[in-house]
Amino acid sequence: MPERTGIPRSRRTFLAGALASGAAATPLLSGTENAAAAVAAPPHPRPSAAPQPWSRDEVRDDARWQTCLGLARQLLLVGTKNEDLKLTYLRTLIDDGLPRTTAPKRVLVIGAGISGLVSAWLLKAAGHDVTVLEANGSRIGGRIKTFRVGPETSEQPFSDPAQYAEAGAMRIPSQHPLTLALVDKLKLKRRPFYNVDVVPGTGNPNGTPPPVTYQAFTGETWSNGSGPGEYKAPTQASNTWILANGIRARKSEYGDHPQAMNRGFGMAEALLNKTTHASMDAILGPVYDYYSRRGKDGTRTLKPFDQWVEGWAKLLYDFDGFSMGRFLTEYAGLSDGSLEAIGTIENLTSRLPLGFLHSFLDASDINPNVTYWELEGGTATLPYAVLPQVAAEVVMNRRVTEMEYYDPAHAGQAVHTDAKNRVWVRTVQETGGDHVPGSEVPGSSQEYTADVAIVTIPFSALRHVKVSPLMSYKKRRSVIELHYDAATKVLLEFNRRWWEFTEEDWKRELDAVQPGLYDKYQSQPGGVPAVHATGGGSITDVANRFVYHPSHQIGDSKGGVVLASYSWADDAVRWDSLDDDERYPYALRGMQELYGTRIEAFYTGRGKTQSWVRNRYAMGEAAVLTPNQLVQIHPAICTPEGPLHFAGEHTSLKHAWIEGALESAVRAALEVNGA
Amino acid sequence: MPERTGIPRSRRTFLAGALASGAAATPLLSGTENAAAAVAAPPHPRPSAAPQPWSRDEVRDDARWQTCLGLARQLLLVGTKNEDLKLTYLRTLIDDGLPRTTAPKRVLVIGAGISGLVSAWLLKAAGHDVTVLEANGSRIGGRIKTFRVGPETSEQPFSDPAQYAEAGAMRIPSQHPLTLALVDKLKLKRRPFYNVDVVPGTGNPNGTPPPVTYQAFTGETWSNGSGPGEYKAPTQASNTWILANGIRARKSEYGDHPQAMNRGFGMAEALLNKTTHASMDAILGPVYDYYSRRGKDGTRTLKPFDQWVEGWAKLLYDFDGFSMGRFLTEYAGLSDGSLEAIGTIENLTSRLPLGFLHSFLDASDINPNVTYWELEGGTATLPYAVLPQVAAEVVMNRRVTEMEYYDPAHAGQAVHTDAKNRVWVRTVQETGGDHVPGSEVPGSSQEYTADVAIVTIPFSALRHVKVSPLMSYKKRRSVIELHYDAATKVLLEFNRRWWEFTEEDWKRELDAVQPGLYDKYQSQPGGVPAVHATGGGSITDVANRFVYHPSHQIGDSKGGVVLASYSWADDAVRWDSLDDDERYPYALRGMQELYGTRIEAFYTGRGKTQSWVRNRYAMGEAAVLTPNQLVQIHPAICTPEGPLHFAGEHTSLKHAWIEGALESAVRAALEVNGA
Repeated sequence: MPERTGIPRSRRTFLAGALASGAAATPLLSGTENAAAAVAAPPHPRPSAAPQPWSRDEVRDDARWQTCLGLARQLLLVGTKNEDLKLTYLRTLIDDGLPRTTAPKRVLVIGAGISGLVSAWLLKAAGHDVTVLEANGSRIGGRIKTFRVGPETSEQPFSDPAQYAEAGAMRIPSQHPLTLALVDKLKLKRRPFYNVDVVPGTGNPNGTPPPVTYQAFTGETWSNGSGPGEYKAPTQASNTWILANGIRARKSEYGDHPQAMNRGFGMAEALLNKTTHASMDAILGPVYDYYSRRGKDGTRTLKPFDQWVEGWAKLLYDFDGFSMGRFLTEYAGLSDGSLEAIGTIENLTSRLPLGFLHSFLDASDINPNVTYWELEGGTATLPYAVLPQVAAEVVMNRRVTEMEYYDPAHAGQAVHTDAKNRVWVRTVQETGGDHVPGSEVPGSSQEYTADVAIVTIPFSALRHVKVSPLMSYKKRRSVIELHYDAATKVLLEFNRRWWEFTEEDWKRELDAVQPGLYDKYQSQPGGVPAVHATGGGSITDVANRFVYHPSHQIGDSKGGVVLASYSWADDAVRWDSLDDDERYPYALRGMQELYGTRIEAFYTGRGKTQSWVRNRYAMGEAAVLTPNQLVQIHPAICTPEGPLHFAGEHTSLKHAWIEGALESAVRAALEVNGA
Repeated sequence: MPERTGIPRSRRTFLAGALASGAAATPLLSGTENAAAAVAAPPHPRPSAAPQPWSRDEVRDDARWQTCLGLARQLLLVGTKNEDLKLTYLRTLIDDGLPRTTAPKRVLVIGAGISGLVSAWLLKAAGHDVTVLEANGSRIGGRIKTFRVGPETSEQPFSDPAQYAEAGAMRIPSQHPLTLALVDKLKLKRRPFYNVDVVPGTGNPNGTPPPVTYQAFTGETWSNGSGPGEYKAPTQASNTWILANGIRARKSEYGDHPQAMNRGFGMAEALLNKTTHASMDAILGPVYDYYSRRGKDGTRTLKPFDQWVEGWAKLLYDFDGFSMGRFLTEYAGLSDGSLEAIGTIENLTSRLPLGFLHSFLDASDINPNVTYWELEGGTATLPYAVLPQVAAEVVMNRRVTEMEYYDPAHAGQAVHTDAKNRVWVRTVQETGGDHVPGSEVPGSSQEYTADVAIVTIPFSALRHVKVSPLMSYKKRRSVIELHYDAATKVLLEFNRRWWEFTEEDWKRELDAVQPGLYDKYQSQPGGVPAVHATGGGSITDVANRFVYHPSHQIGDSKGGVVLASYSWADDAVRWDSLDDDERYPYALRGMQELYGTRIEAFYTGRGKTQSWVRNRYAMGEAAVLTPNQLVQIHPAICTPEGPLHFAGEHTSLKHAWIEGALESAVRAALEVNGA
């Protein structure tokens, strides 16, 4: 086993986030809320709120322990020889490709999302005969989707032809090297995505981005360039709003004086003086302790390799059974009010019944202290930059309805397959594209055979594909039960970027629309001061929940498209029940509560919306595990079933991220090439 | 406090269910799986699987205890003077109406579902000035909805004009006296709904139904008739299928020899010889013990009044934090395989992350041993039989978008209300009806004022109504967070009732379609023996999940509409992502896996489907609590906010049932009349 000499970049970033917000590695339940509970709350803690760090040093179920060890290695990308698989993937995808095959295979790739496209590209380049089947009639990219005029459609989404906006993936964290290096390799232009609004004119946001660098846990370093780049992050302004319980504060104000906002939720006294982010980090301290140590200066160091892996295994062992709600109430001992405050501001409320681990792992990827990148022209430019590599191999408008694979144990039942044609699929053409209710075109059925297949469609979609013979028991359970979350976006176009306005800008621009309009709005109820924010976004307990302003001006356009509502889980389902056209007026009204009635003066009347649960091919935003699903079904998700291999974000442990899809694509391509 | 002299009928039925299937009041974790776990499973139980009946005799949080006492009284319908509120509701709704008012109020009822209609009816009859606002343009009834030709539409849903089928509520359990007595009062014809298929010609299913009788916990008995009625339940046949893991059995076979089916799931040895229903009952024994005692003969007796109420309070106190998944794994100690078996067959898999209590309470209402009733002509005949009582008061096509209520503490902010006009709402007309994407008709805004309002719309819909001033904190949290479940039905029409066929019937009818067709199908793979079932339904792990055959022939029609797929929660979301028209071929294919390819010969090509999450006004099937929501938010759901009162199934503790909606309707009408 190699000596532990390095720290993976992603984990460092995660810890940096915790430290930046003042997290202390406090003992469990001290320093957070329990002291207060003893004072303010009923004399006895709730019976269920009394867990000790009960199993930190105990492992009482060996089978579960072995499963968790395997899961930890998968999570940390530790290969069978303790090699760093991220390094392998980077070298394969970015530098060297797969070894050229001496035994070319006929490979069927199901789905032209980013994982399907990339695995097809790698395998084709290695000499295999690849066919990619895509259900959509006009679009590749899956859950990477930009509302834009492009190869997928000539329909103008917004009134300003320059405008576009993201329906799906919109930001790439700096600790996702595969994605960023692929972007650079394809010579796409990336620029910062501001999760938090910035001070215009500070930093050097248009400078050459830094090269992508990955420091492996083996001590090796991978990079696609040298030097620091010219990019320099702008200063964070935090002018954007938090509006909850009728109480309004800028994020900077909340950071300095969180009491009023916290009190609006009835937060416990002990947490009143902390931001919810700081409280959450403090609460997570004992969980960080599983795999890292906190020094006297507050910095965290990962434990040595074996302890790091085992620490993660223990963490998974102990916490896979926890929902986020259970973690916050029983483990952290939060009162209802504190739960509501943290849930509302940290975007956990709607996911309380879902697995703790999902949000815990995700916290390393969405964090105010991480740098994010976006692609000029939209994230869809990424799959469309891969597409030319396999354009001849992609067959559009082919929805797979049935699949047979050759299993020698069930050879007698084989109808369409044999030892030579080991994979068979039936496809249909459907009328309409992504959003248009369609049905099978009569007589459109077409069959394909191959030696091997990579199935990249979500398991929510695979649920409706008839697979013969039955796949392994655990695989079937995972297809049936893997939870897919709802996520919904409502985007509204404005012909001015009013969110960047100062109050003076408001006066000038409103009065330009109609003399006296500024004063007219000022005299009405519903007035709100200028938010004056470049990028970033606001948080609210109105239905919109999370708002994001565009980080950049597009061309010379004076306007922009705001992500007026971005919501997950139950918050999203409240929108999913509305038809597309209904969402815009409600989203605008919520925006007006946040930013004032006057924003209506610049609304173009155009919007776009995406409900991923209502998308007929995506069938959900992403895999989000419910309690126990990591141990119970995840290990079966990516194991091959005879000639069937599996890829896609749901087969990774970076759910919902392009990075996870890419890891899975390279992994599956290596499997197929090496088989 | 009155001496405890009676047992509520509903609870007796619940217990009868448990006993009929051999449940034993075994000590916790014995007699179920633990003995086996010690043999077959790893040497140590999972750390989280070790709970003792830890808090049975302890109450450590007084505030929580008081909340749970209140919730138990609400659940058991115990009034402030320990009167039986069900009795009050029966006398009010069925016998006497409300006391005639001496101070008539202008009452606005939001929503013309069954709770809105019934509360409007009661209040109008008592002398109030009532207006009911309904968002739908053409239909009342809410989640009671029948696909039929009727006052709501002249569009023929199926090819046979005689056919109709239920989109929503389809069965009324015998322990729901308010619903059944209302049905009888309105002189609607009810007949049995067969949850389990029956032997034709047995019993006397067409005889006069028995009167509705309710035995209050105070000892009083209420009935709407005398004598036993002529109805006699037919014999259960249990011919229908269970198909899981590729293993097929009739329910009767599974009842006699559950081993093979159970083994398909990898169920633990100790449970192999029990049906999942029996296992579940055994597992629930210790929970039943909270409020009842098991005698030596196996019968259960409710504890005396005070202990009964306190037992339920303790049950809620102990278990509100549990998801069903956590209950089955940690409390019951089930292995993964046993969890899957019980989850799949008992319809719990998709709801594992949701609250244990929801399914526990529901178990009293869906049970093979309960008698169910359905309404001839469809369940929609119920709201449409109430409608004439308030026809002049119902305003269709009025969606409420904004609401203001007068709160003296915020009088300065009042814009539309004052001490005399205490409620104001703004409504819009929308194009299209229930299913058609629509938008606000320009200039259609209309305002209404009143003294008091009863808000009956789901909180998922209320989320998009702007309410001023802010309602109380806990009410707002409940509007934001109350979980609404997904439930989806796919109905397919057949021109023969092939599910009733014997194999001989199949031969005759197929050969009538085309000579030799029977043999042709017999020679193909995919053959399945005739299910030969009148009513009842099948269970499968294919996407359809639950299938229900119609219980009765409709008129002279030779065909019938099968509920080809009825699914909840994540199982339903897998269908929700498909557009309506896409669902039929998939539902038919799943039916063919269950019943054989040949059923296609009788498919008319017509179907209907209902996704309640995608219904723009219902916005979900029903409130289904997630862990902790009962204690954290339920108490705030039905409390008035000034002049705003709340009704609907979500304000009751009989979620998703007409009975709960009716309880809430009478409760709210009493509040308004008495205020």
